[in-house]
Amino acid sequence: MSLDTARGVYVIAPTPFHDDGRVDEASIDRMTEFFVAAGAAGITVLGQMGEAPKLDAAEALAVAARVIRRAGMPVVVGVTAPGFAAMRALAREVMDAGAAGVMIAPPNTLRTDDSIVAYYRQAAEAIGADVPFVIQDYPLTFSVQMTPAVIRRIVQDNASCRMLKHEDWPGLEKISALRGFERDDSMRHVSILCGNGGLFLDFEMERGADGAMTGYCFPDMLADVVRLSAAGQRDAAHDLFDAHLPLIRYEQQQGVGLAVRKYVLMRRGIIASEAQRPPGARLAAAARSEVDYLLARIARTDARARLAS
Amino acid sequence: MSLDTARGVYVIAPTPFHDDGRVDEASIDRMTEFFVAAGAAGITVLGQMGEAPKLDAAEALAVAARVIRRAGMPVVVGVTAPGFAAMRALAREVMDAGAAGVMIAPPNTLRTDDSIVAYYRQAAEAIGADVPFVIQDYPLTFSVQMTPAVIRRIVQDNASCRMLKHEDWPGLEKISALRGFERDDSMRHVSILCGNGGLFLDFEMERGADGAMTGYCFPDMLADVVRLSAAGQRDAAHDLFDAHLPLIRYEQQQGVGLAVRKYVLMRRGIIASEAQRPPGARLAAAARSEVDYLLARIARTDARARLAS
Amino acid sequence: MSLDTARGVYVIAPTPFHDDGRVDEASIDRMTEFFVAAGAAGITVLGQMGEAPKLDAAEALAVAARVIRRAGMPVVVGVTAPGFAAMRALAREVMDAGAAGVMIAPPNTLRTDDSIVAYYRQAAEAIGADVPFVIQDYPLTFSVQMTPAVIRRIVQDNASCRMLKHEDWPGLEKISALRGFERDDSMRHVSILCGNGGLFLDFEMERGADGAMTGYCFPDMLADVVRLSAAGQRDAAHDLFDAHLPLIRYEQQQGVGLAVRKYVLMRRGIIASEAQRPPGARLAAAARSEVDYLLARIARTDARARLAS
Amino acid sequence: MSLDTARGVYVIAPTPFHDDGRVDEASIDRMTEFFVAAGAAGITVLGQMGEAPKLDAAEALAVAARVIRRAGMPVVVGVTAPGFAAMRALAREVMDAGAAGVMIAPPNTLRTDDSIVAYYRQAAEAIGADVPFVIQDYPLTFSVQMTPAVIRRIVQDNASCRMLKHEDWPGLEKISALRGFERDDSMRHVSILCGNGGLFLDFEMERGADGAMTGYCFPDMLADVVRLSAAGQRDAAHDLFDAHLPLIRYEQQQGVGLAVRKYVLMRRGIIASEAQRPPGARLAAAARSEVDYLLARIARTDARARLAS
Repeated sequence: MSLDTARGVYVIAPTPFHDDGRVDEASIDRMTEFFVAAGAAGITVLGQMGEAPKLDAAEALAVAARVIRRAGMPVVVGVTAPGFAAMRALAREVMDAGAAGVMIAPPNTLRTDDSIVAYYRQAAEAIGADVPFVIQDYPLTFSVQMTPAVIRRIVQDNASCRMLKHEDWPGLEKISALRGFERDDSMRHVSILCGNGGLFLDFEMERGADGAMTGYCFPDMLADVVRLSAAGQRDAAHDLFDAHLPLIRYEQQQGVGLAVRKYVLMRRGIIASEAQRPPGARLAAAARSEVDYLLARIARTDARARLAS
Repeated sequence: MSLDTARGVYVIAPTPFHDDGRVDEASIDRMTEFFVAAGAAGITVLGQMGEAPKLDAAEALAVAARVIRRAGMPVVVGVTAPGFAAMRALAREVMDAGAAGVMIAPPNTLRTDDSIVAYYRQAAEAIGADVPFVIQDYPLTFSVQMTPAVIRRIVQDNASCRMLKHEDWPGLEKISALRGFERDDSMRHVSILCGNGGLFLDFEMERGADGAMTGYCFPDMLADVVRLSAAGQRDAAHDLFDAHLPLIRYEQQQGVGLAVRKYVLMRRGIIASEAQRPPGARLAAAARSEVDYLLARIARTDARARLAS
Repeated sequence: MSLDTARGVYVIAPTPFHDDGRVDEASIDRMTEFFVAAGAAGITVLGQMGEAPKLDAAEALAVAARVIRRAGMPVVVGVTAPGFAAMRALAREVMDAGAAGVMIAPPNTLRTDDSIVAYYRQAAEAIGADVPFVIQDYPLTFSVQMTPAVIRRIVQDNASCRMLKHEDWPGLEKISALRGFERDDSMRHVSILCGNGGLFLDFEMERGADGAMTGYCFPDMLADVVRLSAAGQRDAAHDLFDAHLPLIRYEQQQGVGLAVRKYVLMRRGIIASEAQRPPGARLAAAARSEVDYLLARIARTDARARLAS
Repeated sequence: MSLDTARGVYVIAPTPFHDDGRVDEASIDRMTEFFVAAGAAGITVLGQMGEAPKLDAAEALAVAARVIRRAGMPVVVGVTAPGFAAMRALAREVMDAGAAGVMIAPPNTLRTDDSIVAYYRQAAEAIGADVPFVIQDYPLTFSVQMTPAVIRRIVQDNASCRMLKHEDWPGLEKISALRGFERDDSMRHVSILCGNGGLFLDFEMERGADGAMTGYCFPDMLADVVRLSAAGQRDAAHDLFDAHLPLIRYEQQQGVGLAVRKYVLMRRGIIASEAQRPPGARLAAAARSEVDYLLARIARTDARARLAS
């Protein structure tokens, strides 16, 4: 399957660690199987929320390869790096291991349209024209703002650009603009999967997104929202989404989000430990009880959350 | 009443304009009366969402004075300025006009703890030690990060510091830390009112906040949430809050938020026009219909939204 | 004279204060006369180094008007403001008072080419199409990066854009690119005057700049360098420039620069006091003696510095 | 020798490449020998100007090990990385290979005093308490501002912190403050070597710095300036420094600097090619001729530059 026609949910996978910081391979396997069972269309590993920068080169490759082997579905691998040599090395290795493509975020020093376009051209050249890549457009974290016209230039310049991980904020008009470019034939189609923890997924689908690429701790719910929305069941999609919104919102807190995510995945029995490598931190006690409260509230209408309580 | 013991909702007032850009005084009056009737404990004018930088000096004073005269409750006035001369001038004028205090955001160049503390000391001196002031702690917009210890230094250094507009994000642990400082007697009490469009108000109240200082388009709902939460009716507070969360979340989109807010206030009959001065823009058509949809959904459980539909 | 054909040195004027912080009008007059005698082609007031944000609205207008009345040469007035209402008010007032044009720096939140172009279009409209304006391109301070193509768009979109205050860093290739646009007829001519404290003036002239717009404490030297360079006396221009470079470099330290500048202007008898309004600070003792040492070294070859020692 | 008592010049080594982008080992050897002969006290490899992020892990280790073997003097290795796993891996490897210590720059997201201190504590723990490290304090590039008090906390918290690469700008008062901390016994001694391309080396020595850590293309001149200054020959130090200042200033242009540096080192016969890996670029033609002109001017008084012309 080609990434540019992808639809559904690509789950951003966290990297499970043992309490002592070693990579937890059994949890990787269990998590991968859970994502498949949850209705994911694909999996993304080594993203920001996968604690990628905290892995050394050998660990990164091992995690990606393990998920790829087990998933039986497209796996996108984050290869963002401070330079092209490391980016190329990881990209070639994970493609050899069976990845469907790689994801590249821009360095946070880019400040002009031309410099962003040039960066992606150089990156695409560095990893090789045969490696499909995903643009990660996440200004809140990366401080780089790409207009729709800049994204169009990247897509048109690079045949290997196949997907946009859309997490501009606000970003609804951007989806509409990009889909408008397709309609007026000024840009070829790429898949648009939305991040931002899913915070705007309800309306992003209605604006023309193909699905989500995020790691909210109930990817099964995200898959249902995408399915309901694609099927035109607007109210049902919003009803399900709204039931989770208090927790989605809570998880979307920068820096706290991954702790929430790992805590809930642990409670759901999917990973063994909520441990993060430094500088990450576990959830504080008050936060833990707030998440518990939110889970109990979700459980009133969504059985998935009951399993977590 | 002294600001440091304030509780409840201080509504961030937008500045109503006619379609041609002139200040709309009749709408100011109607809006002020609505805020009073909605259960506000105070009003804040000339904040970021009040389009303060788009007013000239005479307009700014006139808007503040008009709200103060009509409100009959404490009015805080934003006096953030690129320099102390303009800040002092406006602060003295609005205090003479009856303001309860002023609000000061830090310039976005501050990068060390000491520079933040020094800035507030100089600002407090510039406006005069007799002018109560509010710290605006909003890193997402101002790019200045204040630790709890820095806020404590500002409070302890400046007797005229009376309130924190808390909109750090994430910020729940910060409220707990500040209240901890009070308990261990290392910091005197100041009122903590929360901004961020109310996105975390449910838990902020439980962490020890005194209320909200934000301009979400249903301040009457915020007042009820604060009241329910303060009364220990946790589930009821969350139920009401959650019904509005999809719209709160929508309004919290940077740059789009004020357009949503003015649109809904116009639909509620509170202001005559949703017009903003440049560079602000009205809501795009698709966004407008999304807000309409959210209002209709809220209206299923909250009669206030029915009036708006 | 029209700003777009300006050549020579527009001196960035500091605002002289008495030790108690009041504006020192006698020093303004003496300074203005000195700039004229020093061979300036124009004067720029209310820039960043003119402590503009520290003046209230009435003071700002009074300072500008006083310099305009005395100068008898073109005066550009900085009108950068957080919003268009204040920008327009000051722009109209100083044009009525006889200014040759106004200077506008971009707000430091602009991050895309289109947003920069849109900002200048809105600003030009706000101040009125009859008001000639200068783009201030100073990324080091304002964090906004304008490519040559963006500057061309601003120039071509706005007939009232007449001059570029060029202080990108590095910026030599930018001057070459802009002059190339003129040669290939894709951009009309505007005057390019260079800032950055003059740190690259030697080569900026050779790349096609029309002169300097900066406030180095020996504007008379800058005028000579511009004259020598324009006359093709390359070695002589560099010899004079290099003699001052140790002090130019010293003055170019962000935050310290204005203290150096005022200290030397005071020593040269041009302003009565080196006082700045807060948060500015006088030169520390060690720095003062370093500047004295540099002045003594310059005095070995340039008589102007002897007068200062 | 322990890094904390280091004096003199630690040359920041560029990484020489062949025109096709491969690491040029013969040039590494020649360059290393040149640095030794030039009077360097040490060498720093894999810094920002060493194009470290453009090397993959194996290349980085190979470059460091090669310089270490050849140098016969202390070699500091940059190990800055997006995460602690990669940082630790490289640090352990280069220490095993004989490095004298490692250099760590802060991630550009740190915004509070505590977060900077915490980062260095975690980094020191990650690489191991037996690995001497150098703080790189370079706000212009890294956007992290460390006050003298923060540096003191890092030094006092971590026995393995041995040196400060000082390139704050402006930074003279910071050196004075840190030396003041030593005098009042609130901070133990660390070596302070100055970067910033040497732009303020003349006065930095007088403020108490121990030398330079920078890669200006005439490290032999830097060594002489440090020696003259340490010997109290103030005027001679400044005379030599000032002769090079026009080129130092030219080389200090962000983004252009490394191209200048490699061009001159190539002209001096020290490296075979001025090639950089992408996204680096060679000097444009006009810039090349400007550097030639500056070299010719330096050659009038400094024979070293004659060899380069």
